[in-house]
Amino acid sequence: MPIRTDLALEAREMRSGTLEGVESESFREGDVLITRVKIVNQKGAEALGKSMGTYVTLEAERMRENDKEIYDNICTALARELRAIANLPPDASVLAAGLGNRFITPDSIGPIAVSHLLITRHLKTLMPQELGDDVRTVSAVAPGVLGLTGIETGEIIRGVVEKTAPSAVFVIDALASRKMERVGTTIQLTDTGIRPGSGVGNNRRELSRESLGVPVVAIGVPMVVDAATVASDAIDIVLECIKKEDENHVFGEMFASLSDLDRYKLIFEALEPSAANMVVTPKEVDSLSNRVGKIIANGINLALQDSMTQDDIDRYLYVIQ
Amino acid sequence: MPIRTDLALEAREMRSGTLEGVESESFREGDVLITRVKIVNQKGAEALGKSMGTYVTLEAERMRENDKEIYDNICTALARELRAIANLPPDASVLAAGLGNRFITPDSIGPIAVSHLLITRHLKTLMPQELGDDVRTVSAVAPGVLGLTGIETGEIIRGVVEKTAPSAVFVIDALASRKMERVGTTIQLTDTGIRPGSGVGNNRRELSRESLGVPVVAIGVPMVVDAATVASDAIDIVLECIKKEDENHVFGEMFASLSDLDRYKLIFEALEPSAANMVVTPKEVDSLSNRVGKIIANGINLALQDSMTQDDIDRYLYVIQ
Amino acid sequence: MPIRTDLALEAREMRSGTLEGVESESFREGDVLITRVKIVNQKGAEALGKSMGTYVTLEAERMRENDKEIYDNICTALARELRAIANLPPDASVLAAGLGNRFITPDSIGPIAVSHLLITRHLKTLMPQELGDDVRTVSAVAPGVLGLTGIETGEIIRGVVEKTAPSAVFVIDALASRKMERVGTTIQLTDTGIRPGSGVGNNRRELSRESLGVPVVAIGVPMVVDAATVASDAIDIVLECIKKEDENHVFGEMFASLSDLDRYKLIFEALEPSAANMVVTPKEVDSLSNRVGKIIANGINLALQDSMTQDDIDRYLYVIQ
Amino acid sequence: MPIRTDLALEAREMRSGTLEGVESESFREGDVLITRVKIVNQKGAEALGKSMGTYVTLEAERMRENDKEIYDNICTALARELRAIANLPPDASVLAAGLGNRFITPDSIGPIAVSHLLITRHLKTLMPQELGDDVRTVSAVAPGVLGLTGIETGEIIRGVVEKTAPSAVFVIDALASRKMERVGTTIQLTDTGIRPGSGVGNNRRELSRESLGVPVVAIGVPMVVDAATVASDAIDIVLECIKKEDENHVFGEMFASLSDLDRYKLIFEALEPSAANMVVTPKEVDSLSNRVGKIIANGINLALQDSMTQDDIDRYLYVIQ
Repeated sequence: MPIRTDLALEAREMRSGTLEGVESESFREGDVLITRVKIVNQKGAEALGKSMGTYVTLEAERMRENDKEIYDNICTALARELRAIANLPPDASVLAAGLGNRFITPDSIGPIAVSHLLITRHLKTLMPQELGDDVRTVSAVAPGVLGLTGIETGEIIRGVVEKTAPSAVFVIDALASRKMERVGTTIQLTDTGIRPGSGVGNNRRELSRESLGVPVVAIGVPMVVDAATVASDAIDIVLECIKKEDENHVFGEMFASLSDLDRYKLIFEALEPSAANMVVTPKEVDSLSNRVGKIIANGINLALQDSMTQDDIDRYLYVIQ
Repeated sequence: MPIRTDLALEAREMRSGTLEGVESESFREGDVLITRVKIVNQKGAEALGKSMGTYVTLEAERMRENDKEIYDNICTALARELRAIANLPPDASVLAAGLGNRFITPDSIGPIAVSHLLITRHLKTLMPQELGDDVRTVSAVAPGVLGLTGIETGEIIRGVVEKTAPSAVFVIDALASRKMERVGTTIQLTDTGIRPGSGVGNNRRELSRESLGVPVVAIGVPMVVDAATVASDAIDIVLECIKKEDENHVFGEMFASLSDLDRYKLIFEALEPSAANMVVTPKEVDSLSNRVGKIIANGINLALQDSMTQDDIDRYLYVIQ
Repeated sequence: MPIRTDLALEAREMRSGTLEGVESESFREGDVLITRVKIVNQKGAEALGKSMGTYVTLEAERMRENDKEIYDNICTALARELRAIANLPPDASVLAAGLGNRFITPDSIGPIAVSHLLITRHLKTLMPQELGDDVRTVSAVAPGVLGLTGIETGEIIRGVVEKTAPSAVFVIDALASRKMERVGTTIQLTDTGIRPGSGVGNNRRELSRESLGVPVVAIGVPMVVDAATVASDAIDIVLECIKKEDENHVFGEMFASLSDLDRYKLIFEALEPSAANMVVTPKEVDSLSNRVGKIIANGINLALQDSMTQDDIDRYLYVIQ
Repeated sequence: MPIRTDLALEAREMRSGTLEGVESESFREGDVLITRVKIVNQKGAEALGKSMGTYVTLEAERMRENDKEIYDNICTALARELRAIANLPPDASVLAAGLGNRFITPDSIGPIAVSHLLITRHLKTLMPQELGDDVRTVSAVAPGVLGLTGIETGEIIRGVVEKTAPSAVFVIDALASRKMERVGTTIQLTDTGIRPGSGVGNNRRELSRESLGVPVVAIGVPMVVDAATVASDAIDIVLECIKKEDENHVFGEMFASLSDLDRYKLIFEALEPSAANMVVTPKEVDSLSNRVGKIIANGINLALQDSMTQDDIDRYLYVIQ
């Protein structure tokens, strides 16, 4: 299947009917629609092509707007859902890892987010009394990408985990969705970790409780749609339209024979050879990446420092940009 | 017609057969394919949907590679074609205007290019003897975009032209092509100027000899493809495929009735509502924009300062990034 | 005199006693100390080495802190003082000009500030009803610097003023102070305009009511101290210390003979030859420039749009970074 | 002693006469002056306040100029000296660590440099045949700074070293010099590693063969001078001047009593309280940091890939900016 989505929600949407091993519930909270998809057994995992575990999605169409109230609502909802999925004891320390390439705008939300986190680990060591027990220990890295480091991200993070022994790891990464309206408007949280790339059995690349030895929460926001997905959608639309016109069912057979593989070929015919590296992204992706990075950081800050208000957090932030 | 291209070359390609009032010739020079399209009368202008004038296109698939030799070849070819189309007297002064939004990566090549130009106008005034008569007077502005300034780009440039009286204006801007393989690999030069947006009869927006009072050379490189174009291409492919299968010509009628307007509706059905502002762009557009900006700047520097070598130019550059 | 300050407040502080033609008053408002220096005649102008007019300084030591309350207080005070010094009729339109080099961090607050302004001029034209009469017409340019454009900033702005006919011009620029504690913590407003560089009788460089034909309000924040100032201060301290020890007044004569010119020579001996282009600046000048740029922009937004709240303004901002 | 320098060369210059345990030799090579200081025993280490080992300094006043020939000469000399001090076997792999804060311009040369390195480690694994044995295995990290990560840089690098087992580590960092003319014009190489901050007995902070278990080469370029140094120099100049005038030796006693500690107090009196975080830096430090980062990267690339020409290296570079 040529269509790529990193969202369990979309993987679910692409299948009709009930799926064994997949549970799903939704509720709306002001501007934010929250959906929880649980993949409870291996059958469900195979059906959705995703690992077993919980996937929480926060959708807010207005997330792209520069509105303080919406921003606050999203951050509050994100903090609450993060706390629920991470389920950390009060004294648990967290290492945040901002994945992705900071020099490729739609891939930069991980590095941007960690640069806006409230980092306390060094302060807890240097001035334990002043900070008090209420302040949670937080550290962060932006490990870079394989092309720039020559090292699998998982190797770097595993090295840091071994040296610093956090209680849990939060990984932040840009995703691809299959629908353009989800770009920059949807946040996915999952306790299953991340398998960058195809990741089949490549333990060095995986970022999960299994590979890192501590719970891993992945936080992702779709920032692009594959060009192939746009082409695929267009093909679906035209096929649908032709089907309607095909009163004599002449094309019934043809459609039957137009298998997934053929569709795949058609799409690549439409896109090749230069589409391999092409992405569909909003024109204003530079500002959108900054906004998304800040929302994620703020949600994490609120989730981890429950003794602090938003204003307290801002006051102690090492503000960069 | 929903498909947008800013390249006269592609507008020509999209029409088959000979077109009255449109002349076209091509030749290859190492890695660079150079095509000259001349629209010699109003009929040709209407046929292509472009203004009368000359359009020179330099295509170099390997322009995206980081190869010094290819880079030098492209810059040399660009300089020569620029000199030919601008046809400046030796003492003519030039104002370069880098259009576009520097905060939107695929729209930033204009501002990037002018930041790498050899600027001499102030030096010619301050130290005329030291520079000598051989050094051409060059000035530059990056006027910003309407959303950031509230002022039509054409108004700002006209104001600067009136105050500084250059002999000619070079405008640099990012374009949209209809083919992905042309993104970042094709340079278009034209003596017709630029009409940002639809520009119907909007003299304030136009940048041309007519509106500025001096010759205008526009230098553009496609940096995006509209998402609608990708969808449209996919639809064409599937229609073509169905046509082949349609042995009994059952769909002959249907295709006949599937007018351009219907296609347009189909495409927007495939993309709406969030596609309006979506672009297809290479993942590495950040580094590509820098590369393209430097190539344009270097081509202009070589074209305008024929008494200087590449090394001389570099030595005097006010290097920023 | 080798010591450079762009602040009238500091020029005043450097002279003791009452000065004819110079009036000065101060009051504190929460975290902000506001001082108004008026130079009412030519004698005062000569005494301070500044043009006749009003200079309002807002000093807030805590301006560098990331505290929402302080930020709001400074913006509110800035807006009120700006409204007072500009004294615009309700329907007056404003062109904001962000001076300085965006590629030199301590010189970039002008371009940063204009990128955070609420720009309305184009919207007032495109959708006059929707905006209503209450919204003031605002446009903005970031004209660049002579080394990058080859054109005096004053020429570019005069060109834009002639084309767009604003009622007033606000210019924003980075300044140099003589005290390090004022870097990033002091805002100066003046109705005298700006004379970049030495500006002796160079009308093209001047940005003032005289040169632009409309009232000009200059908004500046010191972002650097000249290295020479630091050296000079150190020399003063040591001389002062020696004077105290000089019980027998042996050095009385020597000090008498150590004229200003000699001091100047000493300082340059201490700094030469590489100090010409050296500045003293906070290590965190990158984040400080962003903060200062935003504070200025926000103060201007509040001053110009008195019908809008902070939240309204944010909602309509074209947010870039 | 309040004056800080990270250059062994300057520490040597600040002491007159021969020093036991310190050897030093200089030679000029075109535009580059090369000095080798060897601290051969503990006495020498104490005399200079630096660790035992070799310090090679390349000084090139013209390094700030944008001249291709000088650039090439510096890179060639740097590559040769790097090869000599690292003394790597042909098959040794290297991990480069770019220290410093990429968001603080004068501290950003480490992260900039690693972003221009030829990274091969992943390619050697993915396509060993295509690369051949001649290509050396290189990986890189930019670990960030304590304030942003909460983790000592040494901990992160030690984690990565343990996971990836390089044969040697190159660390790149911005330094402070005591002379302004050395900012951006001097490169120091040393086999002693780096002790960020005061580093007294803090093994977690140290980056050395001892702490990392493999040879460490440190590459540093001064990008700032402490404001205190400028003040101190000014005081010296004025004291020197007074001494000359002091014909009757009245001040002999006073000078005798003006101990180092008193000088220190004077300087801080001149600078306090806001000077703590102030640095003296060239106005054009943004472009200078980029230039310096690229020179270091290029020197390392040439040193490590002796089978490749400059053009080969450029061709394979993952170019970012």
